[in-house]
Amino acid sequence: MGHATAAPVDRLFVHCGELVTLADGPPTGARRGAAMQRLGVITDGAVAVRGGRIVATGTTDELGRRFAATDEIDVGGRVVLPGLVDCHTHPVFAATREGEFHLRCQGADYMAIAAQGGGILSSVRAVRAASEDALTVQTRAHLDGFLRHGTTTIEGKSGYGLSTADEVKSLRALTRAAAGHPVRVRRTFLGAHEVPEEYRGGRQDDYVALVVDEMLPAVDGLCEACDVFAEPKVFDLARSRRILTAARSRGLGLRVHADEIEPMGGAELAVELGAESADHLPQVSDAGVAALAGSDTTAVLLPGTSFYLGKPKHAPARRLLEAGAAVALSTDFNPGTCYTQSLPLIVTLACVLLHMTPEECIAAITINPAASLRLDAEIGTLHPGKRADLVALDLPSWRALGYAFGGNPVAFTCAGGEVHH
Amino acid sequence: MGHATAAPVDRLFVHCGELVTLADGPPTGARRGAAMQRLGVITDGAVAVRGGRIVATGTTDELGRRFAATDEIDVGGRVVLPGLVDCHTHPVFAATREGEFHLRCQGADYMAIAAQGGGILSSVRAVRAASEDALTVQTRAHLDGFLRHGTTTIEGKSGYGLSTADEVKSLRALTRAAAGHPVRVRRTFLGAHEVPEEYRGGRQDDYVALVVDEMLPAVDGLCEACDVFAEPKVFDLARSRRILTAARSRGLGLRVHADEIEPMGGAELAVELGAESADHLPQVSDAGVAALAGSDTTAVLLPGTSFYLGKPKHAPARRLLEAGAAVALSTDFNPGTCYTQSLPLIVTLACVLLHMTPEECIAAITINPAASLRLDAEIGTLHPGKRADLVALDLPSWRALGYAFGGNPVAFTCAGGEVHH
Repeated sequence: MGHATAAPVDRLFVHCGELVTLADGPPTGARRGAAMQRLGVITDGAVAVRGGRIVATGTTDELGRRFAATDEIDVGGRVVLPGLVDCHTHPVFAATREGEFHLRCQGADYMAIAAQGGGILSSVRAVRAASEDALTVQTRAHLDGFLRHGTTTIEGKSGYGLSTADEVKSLRALTRAAAGHPVRVRRTFLGAHEVPEEYRGGRQDDYVALVVDEMLPAVDGLCEACDVFAEPKVFDLARSRRILTAARSRGLGLRVHADEIEPMGGAELAVELGAESADHLPQVSDAGVAALAGSDTTAVLLPGTSFYLGKPKHAPARRLLEAGAAVALSTDFNPGTCYTQSLPLIVTLACVLLHMTPEECIAAITINPAASLRLDAEIGTLHPGKRADLVALDLPSWRALGYAFGGNPVAFTCAGGEVHH
Repeated sequence: MGHATAAPVDRLFVHCGELVTLADGPPTGARRGAAMQRLGVITDGAVAVRGGRIVATGTTDELGRRFAATDEIDVGGRVVLPGLVDCHTHPVFAATREGEFHLRCQGADYMAIAAQGGGILSSVRAVRAASEDALTVQTRAHLDGFLRHGTTTIEGKSGYGLSTADEVKSLRALTRAAAGHPVRVRRTFLGAHEVPEEYRGGRQDDYVALVVDEMLPAVDGLCEACDVFAEPKVFDLARSRRILTAARSRGLGLRVHADEIEPMGGAELAVELGAESADHLPQVSDAGVAALAGSDTTAVLLPGTSFYLGKPKHAPARRLLEAGAAVALSTDFNPGTCYTQSLPLIVTLACVLLHMTPEECIAAITINPAASLRLDAEIGTLHPGKRADLVALDLPSWRALGYAFGGNPVAFTCAGGEVHH
């Protein structure tokens, strides 16, 4: 019946109102500048999937003739994007911190909250007190949350342990939570998230030595990257460089919390060391913008965090984009400074606060974070051969991403060819 | 079995982790000042429902002994609030306006967008071209959206017709959409939303005469209130007063878009005329704040709109609260300046941008908007005798409202005793 020469596939998604493939550009590498405008949109699109991989994309009419599917899924005119990629999250924690959020909204200063036992160190106490099993269960629930919001790959950091045993416990919990879960997790060791209480008062270098000499060997095989909270009052330039250099020599990718609170040349350091990403950046210098633009280090912008903290100054997204930097957007999901798992909401914040276009935002939550995680050969666009990760959104058009806000536009996600509602 | 003397009820909701009743205060009347701090929280709470009404609230243990239910619903430790009340929405429109949102985020000015055919008048063209049936279907879909986000009562305005026939069509569509829908709708005529194109160029007074002499009689029986967009360049003080006074003489409640873009004494006008509400208020004067504080006119704050428009100036919520005004929060759901139906997200914006406490926010999305709609004898708290409208939220505590953002925390809603997932 017209299928005489049709190739068999496992699944055929048909009637995607707008299928945003990003396949007008190369399959790998971050998109920059004008290239971010090309979305490769197919009207009434279809996606053929076999063995968890994309076989072809095209119109419903074309793929209906080319393929015979075991399972045909009518997407009902919804907008379909590549599965979203969130390349900066802190999903391993044991307790929420809503009290601190409301204190801050009432005008309490972050340092005052820390002095009352709040801030990162309150999460550290909770993680240290939690068992690996309990952390695994909670982290897995967070992965479920990412999937509900259309995210099929995250980068997940440790960093609320701050002792060798508790950092190892955190990364083990993350590894166990991810095992068999539809959300793919790339793991980052963030032992240098903060200086723990027992190393305060002049013992910062001892803590750096602990991170370098004891933690990094201990987390071997439990992570693919290392991150540092590079801030003058936390890990200054010399200490950040020492940790990152040691991590690089052990074969880890580098990610850097850079120029968030006070300018310090964190972006320049990240570029100098060949880091995968420099993250946050509200205080990045002109030299930092230029360095990022001339490098393969992705500028990961986290507008949810500056919004949530009530900060007036956001990362200079337009300057970064116009200079040609590779820009990604992430949630920064964490219990203290941004309790959201929704990249669609982050797009709204990026449109309103960072003045990004919807086209730029789409590249910034798909191929660009995938490239920054060195997973772009596998995910981030709908090129044939890549993993069949996609998300169907209840929106009238891809242009309504950002415009429609406050709800969850996700109708379903598909991760590795399997559909999740 | 211990039920020997138990009274029969239709439904018993048990194991509400925190049941926020607001029954520590009187059942009716807006909450002000310190009274907004009293939430009447019952740990491991229960709600007994008969004939669509609340019979009792208490602990699960207590109500389990007192009542025998046909249907017992285990809320599983979730947080339960009164059904949310959104007292400022524009749900009758025919087309989204995402292109305009992105132009604005890229720096285009609202007036420039209007000059290109955007703004309210683009919605007017779409509504005029739509049939009453088509508008009914779209409006009903919007009511479904409110319910999904935990809202069980809305105020819904016309205002994209701007001719007698199209305003009547809009209010008829709203009436038909609401018929039999779980979301209760209180209807507001907003013929004075903008001056239509055919009355531009010196014919503003002719349009005011049309609103007063032709539209108001024509919408008789189709609405309970009348609203005016009171702005110097739209309907100035004299024109606003003329329309509102005529509406009042026809027995309609009054609501006023006041002091949003330019200060004009809109709040003072609302109080002078005994309006139910003065809405928006970023530009309200000190005299306006004092007038509201000494009146029964509710200050309806819409932080989603000032956020979405990228405006630096928000309504002075703390000054209004501290002066003793009745404060409500609403979405302003509309296709141009705030495309969200989520009161939980509005709470996040109210915490971050307006510095409201979670207690204040809860009163501001339940009893206070109910009072402003003159529906407080029926809804807004969980006092026995009121309509069984409630919402169950997947949050660790009521204190996490606002803190958790970007998703939809609603597990289910109950409207008039019927449960909706």
